[in-house]
Amino acid sequence: MAAVKTMQDLFVHTLKDIYYAEKLIYRSLPKMIKQASSPELKQAFEKHREETEGQIERLEQVFEECEIAARGVRCEAMDGIIAEAKDVMDEVEDDQVRDAGMLAAAQTIEHYEMSRYGTLIAWAKQLGMKNSIKLLQQTLDEEKKTDKLLSELAINTVNQNA
Amino acid sequence: MAAVKTMQDLFVHTLKDIYYAEKLIYRSLPKMIKQASSPELKQAFEKHREETEGQIERLEQVFEECEIAARGVRCEAMDGIIAEAKDVMDEVEDDQVRDAGMLAAAQTIEHYEMSRYGTLIAWAKQLGMKNSIKLLQQTLDEEKKTDKLLSELAINTVNQNA
Repeated sequence: MAAVKTMQDLFVHTLKDIYYAEKLIYRSLPKMIKQASSPELKQAFEKHREETEGQIERLEQVFEECEIAARGVRCEAMDGIIAEAKDVMDEVEDDQVRDAGMLAAAQTIEHYEMSRYGTLIAWAKQLGMKNSIKLLQQTLDEEKKTDKLLSELAINTVNQNA
Repeated sequence: MAAVKTMQDLFVHTLKDIYYAEKLIYRSLPKMIKQASSPELKQAFEKHREETEGQIERLEQVFEECEIAARGVRCEAMDGIIAEAKDVMDEVEDDQVRDAGMLAAAQTIEHYEMSRYGTLIAWAKQLGMKNSIKLLQQTLDEEKKTDKLLSELAINTVNQNA
């Protein structure tokens, strides 16, 4: 953070933050898929993992436009969100209550991502990074769709069973 | 987390999580107000602090409906978001770049809150907690308005100067 002097530096720092976060999400989803009891939730997590793979690739293309190597910086916020999700998975015994907790964690993950991508898009516009704007917007659109799907699941399926 | 067995337990756990988060935000905002360079950003943070005070009081009313004492549990996600905001404040020297970074942190705070309140409302509905639904919805509406205001600031003011 000490090396952040310009908007370009801030953009790259935040890009590294979300790159770390996406990779952590990608590594954490298999356990969430395994632990989900509701088939709809399992399916939503599987879809999220596939999408995350594509989102990581898009971030690598944005690193390319910045002409720097793709590398993450530790994102304590996502560490905390994932730690909370792990607590739910490891310690809540009731299937439906655990599903509800995991779904809430997934929604928090989505909101973190939406906030970061929204910020990166605003800064990419300011910095005139045309290709990156398009890539980041594609991901933001996906995240919004996933958030909507998870919200519907929260109302219709998981919570009704719990 | 080990004591979470029912939806009611999960609701209370998440209530304690956001209570801790709101109190941390409340304690952190004076530094953000002081460090903000743009008058619009300063004003937005001041408004956010006032609102946070009311939101903490509403959470205390929800604790009352649950018939338990208002008490937080450590929320590592908000710890991480605030730690990141502090890094920006302490280490970015350029006023406008620091403002942009603080604004991004504030948007991430808002998104975390919106996700948590959305979840709590869904669960309060399921649990039939009529009074709490109303209180939590009031706060969610405020958070959404603040998020919109911050997004407009991000596009119109801070980033244009940076």
